[in-house]
Amino acid sequence: MGIEIERKFTVTGDGWRAAAERVQPMAQGYLNSLAALEGGGQRASVRVRIEGDRAFLNLKSREPGHTRQEFDYPVPVEDARQLLALCVGGRIEKRRHYVRHAGHLWEVDEFIGDNAGLVVAELELASADEAYARPDWLGIEVTDLQRYYNLALAERPYSRWDPVEREPPLR
Amino acid sequence: MGIEIERKFTVTGDGWRAAAERVQPMAQGYLNSLAALEGGGQRASVRVRIEGDRAFLNLKSREPGHTRQEFDYPVPVEDARQLLALCVGGRIEKRRHYVRHAGHLWEVDEFIGDNAGLVVAELELASADEAYARPDWLGIEVTDLQRYYNLALAERPYSRWDPVEREPPLR
Repeated sequence: MGIEIERKFTVTGDGWRAAAERVQPMAQGYLNSLAALEGGGQRASVRVRIEGDRAFLNLKSREPGHTRQEFDYPVPVEDARQLLALCVGGRIEKRRHYVRHAGHLWEVDEFIGDNAGLVVAELELASADEAYARPDWLGIEVTDLQRYYNLALAERPYSRWDPVEREPPLR
Repeated sequence: MGIEIERKFTVTGDGWRAAAERVQPMAQGYLNSLAALEGGGQRASVRVRIEGDRAFLNLKSREPGHTRQEFDYPVPVEDARQLLALCVGGRIEKRRHYVRHAGHLWEVDEFIGDNAGLVVAELELASADEAYARPDWLGIEVTDLQRYYNLALAERPYSRWDPVEREPPLR
């Protein structure tokens, strides 16, 4: 188990592409609904993810703010395919680009499928107050905006967002 | 992943104790609520179980009848302790006795804690119509009676059952 401190941001422009070291296609889904977590019927999300020839089962506690307990276990890819078929909501497909900037490794998720058009950047930090340099392609922080949660995107993808939701206020 | 065909019965008397080969204490809980499965908000249960110095994460599809897809993964016991704290409903504690009878291995679960007084026997079969001999301590079949699901027992333990629920009709 790890304690995860993660911050999420929108991305503006394509400046990050040139600095991407590696790209990993991912498909993932959730065994629980967002409503179950919101309504208190469940205290952790359960995610199935396939990354190329590897697959993982991930459990993440639902807690306010940026800090969560996270558990991640490798599972056979064939199991993951069958588990994806048991997921509720839709399947999330994205290309994760790893982008190094000023000593931090950013994960830039470029969504495809129902969420095409959405690009977000995530940064994992060792502590909640760890300093980091902002790349110039970074937009506003959306860590606590529920519609950006992958679990929320599985149920209400970017293609169904209102225009105003796609243009958050400038930082 | 395995396909599980399991039948569950009440147990009458203590005749099974003398034939028990081995006993395994277990503590388990569920990351999902029964309501989430019942309401269609979730299509698989997610169970955490500690058995002595081993622990497992188990996912079981919710399907009518006796046949379910089941996935079982070993996890570190320390992870399982933390995951149990994220479970909803109560913790289930039981002693599982392994009892061989006429070529089949029965699992006799003797519940303790909030479910003390309840004893059920489970039999895993290779096919839905596989024949088996009934031990004389076997009561009625309760495979499809929801209140006997471990997930249901986590939320409404045997100690809270009405007297009539504890005395099912004779076979």
